[in-house]
Amino acid sequence: MEQVYVSCTSLDENKRQQASAQSETTQDKLIICNERPWKPWQPARSRIRGCAMRVQRAMLSLAGLEWYCYAALGVLTALMSFWIDLTVAKLLRGSGLPEMRTIISGVQLPDYLSLSNLFAKLVGLICTLSAGSTVFLGKVGPFVHLSNMVGAYLHRLYASACGKKQRRTQGEMLVVASAVGVSSCFGAPISGVLFSIEVIGSHYSVRDYCPCFFAAVCGALTLRLLAVFSREQETVTVLFKTSFPAEIPYQPSEILIFIFLGLLCGAVSCVYLFSHRWILRFVRTNKFISRFIATEKALYSATVAFLLAIVTFPHSAGYYMASQLTMKQLLSALLDSTQWNSISHNATLLGESHQFLWQEWSPPGVSVFKSLGCFILIKLWLLVLACTLPLPAGYFMPVFIFGAALGRFLGEGLAYLFPNGISSETLSVINPGGYALVGAAAFAGAVTHTLSPALCALELTGQSTHVVPILIATLISNAVSRSKHQPSFYDGISLIKKLPHLLSLIRASPKLSLVQIGQFVVPAGTVLQRSEKVTGVQNVLNNSTEFEFPVVDTHESPTLLGTVTREQLQALMLENQNEDLSKSLGDVCLIRPVKLQLSTETTVKQAHCIMSVVREERVFVTERGKLCGIITWQEMKKMIEVLAEEI
Amino acid sequence: MEQVYVSCTSLDENKRQQASAQSETTQDKLIICNERPWKPWQPARSRIRGCAMRVQRAMLSLAGLEWYCYAALGVLTALMSFWIDLTVAKLLRGSGLPEMRTIISGVQLPDYLSLSNLFAKLVGLICTLSAGSTVFLGKVGPFVHLSNMVGAYLHRLYASACGKKQRRTQGEMLVVASAVGVSSCFGAPISGVLFSIEVIGSHYSVRDYCPCFFAAVCGALTLRLLAVFSREQETVTVLFKTSFPAEIPYQPSEILIFIFLGLLCGAVSCVYLFSHRWILRFVRTNKFISRFIATEKALYSATVAFLLAIVTFPHSAGYYMASQLTMKQLLSALLDSTQWNSISHNATLLGESHQFLWQEWSPPGVSVFKSLGCFILIKLWLLVLACTLPLPAGYFMPVFIFGAALGRFLGEGLAYLFPNGISSETLSVINPGGYALVGAAAFAGAVTHTLSPALCALELTGQSTHVVPILIATLISNAVSRSKHQPSFYDGISLIKKLPHLLSLIRASPKLSLVQIGQFVVPAGTVLQRSEKVTGVQNVLNNSTEFEFPVVDTHESPTLLGTVTREQLQALMLENQNEDLSKSLGDVCLIRPVKLQLSTETTVKQAHCIMSVVREERVFVTERGKLCGIITWQEMKKMIEVLAEEI
Repeated sequence: MEQVYVSCTSLDENKRQQASAQSETTQDKLIICNERPWKPWQPARSRIRGCAMRVQRAMLSLAGLEWYCYAALGVLTALMSFWIDLTVAKLLRGSGLPEMRTIISGVQLPDYLSLSNLFAKLVGLICTLSAGSTVFLGKVGPFVHLSNMVGAYLHRLYASACGKKQRRTQGEMLVVASAVGVSSCFGAPISGVLFSIEVIGSHYSVRDYCPCFFAAVCGALTLRLLAVFSREQETVTVLFKTSFPAEIPYQPSEILIFIFLGLLCGAVSCVYLFSHRWILRFVRTNKFISRFIATEKALYSATVAFLLAIVTFPHSAGYYMASQLTMKQLLSALLDSTQWNSISHNATLLGESHQFLWQEWSPPGVSVFKSLGCFILIKLWLLVLACTLPLPAGYFMPVFIFGAALGRFLGEGLAYLFPNGISSETLSVINPGGYALVGAAAFAGAVTHTLSPALCALELTGQSTHVVPILIATLISNAVSRSKHQPSFYDGISLIKKLPHLLSLIRASPKLSLVQIGQFVVPAGTVLQRSEKVTGVQNVLNNSTEFEFPVVDTHESPTLLGTVTREQLQALMLENQNEDLSKSLGDVCLIRPVKLQLSTETTVKQAHCIMSVVREERVFVTERGKLCGIITWQEMKKMIEVLAEEI
Repeated sequence: MEQVYVSCTSLDENKRQQASAQSETTQDKLIICNERPWKPWQPARSRIRGCAMRVQRAMLSLAGLEWYCYAALGVLTALMSFWIDLTVAKLLRGSGLPEMRTIISGVQLPDYLSLSNLFAKLVGLICTLSAGSTVFLGKVGPFVHLSNMVGAYLHRLYASACGKKQRRTQGEMLVVASAVGVSSCFGAPISGVLFSIEVIGSHYSVRDYCPCFFAAVCGALTLRLLAVFSREQETVTVLFKTSFPAEIPYQPSEILIFIFLGLLCGAVSCVYLFSHRWILRFVRTNKFISRFIATEKALYSATVAFLLAIVTFPHSAGYYMASQLTMKQLLSALLDSTQWNSISHNATLLGESHQFLWQEWSPPGVSVFKSLGCFILIKLWLLVLACTLPLPAGYFMPVFIFGAALGRFLGEGLAYLFPNGISSETLSVINPGGYALVGAAAFAGAVTHTLSPALCALELTGQSTHVVPILIATLISNAVSRSKHQPSFYDGISLIKKLPHLLSLIRASPKLSLVQIGQFVVPAGTVLQRSEKVTGVQNVLNNSTEFEFPVVDTHESPTLLGTVTREQLQALMLENQNEDLSKSLGDVCLIRPVKLQLSTETTVKQAHCIMSVVREERVFVTERGKLCGIITWQEMKKMIEVLAEEI
């Protein structure tokens, strides 16, 4: 299966040949030019050129070209991340994750990875900034999309540099790009790698594991070093510094409360996911709104943004929900390890000089519980509403912050109930910041049905003390939100947008895994029979563009014998030009057996799994030894689209 | 492919039928017994039984049976881990990782997972303790082996409880068990999960991702809670507490030195791996020693242990290499964040009352550099020698500590050269403990060709400040040790023991990936032809035990039409008992097409990959539509064994 059956690329082949012909003539011209005019410092220049060649050779001997691509991917993506953060202090998290998952699973979506789209998306993201401060949206999703575009572009460069020697496919580069996207967003390499495993869905090729780590570390390091060079931070450190007590971070009995927090986050996530799906479907099915969105995108966005702005205006309801803070400040405040409630009672002791971020949560006359409660109740619906905006926007960070507020609320409540800590033996007071961190990871994990938010919480804050509670709560909230087979946030969007993503379809309707490929098989194009004469072969060569042809016994009883390549046939023609024209194909040509055959009763799921694992472009389908047709990724996409329509 | 072709299990099938028949009669007896004798508290007992049934039903509705198995796996393994640690303060790390990798890749090795072996191994590990203090060996490897045994046992329980409904294979349980093994050893769930990904080698099924995390967290939590309950620690915390400065853990320019440390660790790992392979081959090929080991295992072990003990005796060379410390104390001391060299010069200021662990590294008259240098130079050869011991022993922790010493040496040297830190602007002195941590991860990663030691270093110490340097150094040391295609520690053992592990063979000799399955295909057992009459079918049923039969066109031209099951044939017999005996099989029986066919030119690598991904027990091999034979995991094992002999 190493051999690639690219029947549809023979056109590209022609183009490439033309291009190489062009480049040859260009080289000729260059040589001619080179000989004529005198240029200064000829020996120095040739010495430098020699040095450059030697460096290039040394670098390539150290590691393959693809590893330089991975490094470039990491560095470029982190540069973009930092550039965006620098140009604008806040930024809408563009959507795109459901689309990216689909592309990574092997299905091509036109235009999603083009370079022009990349620049449009970058500029668009920065332009939609001003709305970002109130609509409570984030950056991860569009950022993974951006890194995938960079990855696709780098792969084109890599492929053109390597030619046929290339050892990595575009799919592999996109998996690496997903890891880099998350890693460059947060400076968190490990959660990036775990995210790339989760985004794959079925089988993760362990070949991609080292590249993912390598590129993710390049990205994270670049992002963090840029923060150092721009004098934002003194050294390479985490994005959200926290100062949790390290000696006794929590009592063992508090683990039960963390488990409860996991259950709570799971339950709230079910409410959120249900409302999210409901409003997406409502917006799509309600005639008035769907027509309004289709015709007046800008007006709709402005209306919703205006609505959101009214609610969060600091002199209206915003007063009760710390709406003056930016997303980053909100998270920093929520992760604070002091007990707000007990300190706000002694507020007079603090004096006016020290203004802490968290004091926004406790404005005069409003208790901490009231403002946190308002935030939780109101933001849930605002976030659901914001999801309907047709803007490039991400939903990870808002969900993460919402979970932090949920955890903080529980933590502050416990601190109020047990001012001296849960266990009276040892003196360790309750740290509401720890609950906020656990809640953030658990809620974000439950909404997306993933575990990487747990690692993300660890890497964002550097709080390794809470690793066990975070993982437990995230696992439990995942279990709650995955029960009853309800789709995750991304699956929900995939289903409503009818994206050809097989796994989310099967998760939503398990009986789809039994659908067979029979009805989707297409004819195998030009088929040769064994008794084909030399003249017939010449006709086939003239009238077709395929790179490889299946050979059957006879056209009437098409038992599949194997394949011959165009090159083999062309060589055959040359050899037999002047010889006996009555020789048949089977006598003079080596027919290579087909290494893998499926049947019409193979299920779509199995075919998808096998094709993505063996990296096959085209698979033959036979029935009782007879050739029925082929399945390519084109047909696979059509199949999944049909399934998506049926659901 | 959901359908499982278990031709060899029809015997088991018979046994199971007998067993179920037995259990039915037992139940009958029980009912009879139940009716006769009067028992006290009948209503209370039945109420309790009802409650238990309801709880069981509620628990099963919450999550499938397999999740309880995963939890049990985590808890049991952690219990063992803690029990061993408690019974004996130190323990030999039994080998077994290369064998486990082989079993997880799908190849069965007899007896490796039996329950009796489990207890023998546990007891053996504890018995070989006394040698452990001097021979510098560890626990991870045998521990992963132990957890795999527990996993295999739990899977047998799960399979017998679920019957045919079971949704998880033994292979999946073993992957989870590998994650649990590492996690329970160190209380480090994330590195456990990454280890399980690395141990798979080719394609990691994302289905196993959540189970791995779940069981690993159960294991880590149990281990850490046990430490709390036994009053060893006050709360759930990491195994090796460190106190690195969190504000400015290192200067950005120190990253270059970390990169150098990565290169250094990579280079030393090459020396170590080369010596390790050399001595293993020497021991196997030298006639005298190999005969000595074969006949006098105990005497050889004692001799080597005595040699090691002489060298590390505290009054001989051991004086210069802190040999009075245990493995755990060695690591704790090396990770200390103070600068030993500068403090030991002011030793008089410390007074006699405070005895720190690290002072063992600087006994009177010996400088820190001298003792670290001695340790590095001598331990390398001692470790190589200890690898030849035919004892269950692990090599991860020794390698980890050796790397820590390497890093510490560099860190102390830097601290001596730059007493005020590298950058003169900010006041941040060099932290040699950080270098020790980075060196440990980088060296362990380079020796094993994995990245999970980086996570392990983070989780063992909770030092999230150094995540970026650790990852960079580990990646670089990996790149160095993987260049030149030399095998990793585990690959080396696999190759020398000639274990049937395909990936390590292909890594050692890439041309093996071109070997085709043709020569290894075996006949497909009993084959039916379409025109088979009812009487012939009856004969086949009587004389064979297969669960499923391939059907071909005719025996002379065996075009594969599909398969029929034994059940279908039996039903056919019942129906046609009194009817026309001249009907043929093709007319009356539905022949199901074969969903997946390989050809004789498929390579072993591709067949292995496809069979492990689609979880197929038996694959048909055809050539031009004609049935050539089958490939099962038995043949796969034979193939890989042949390849291992050839290398």
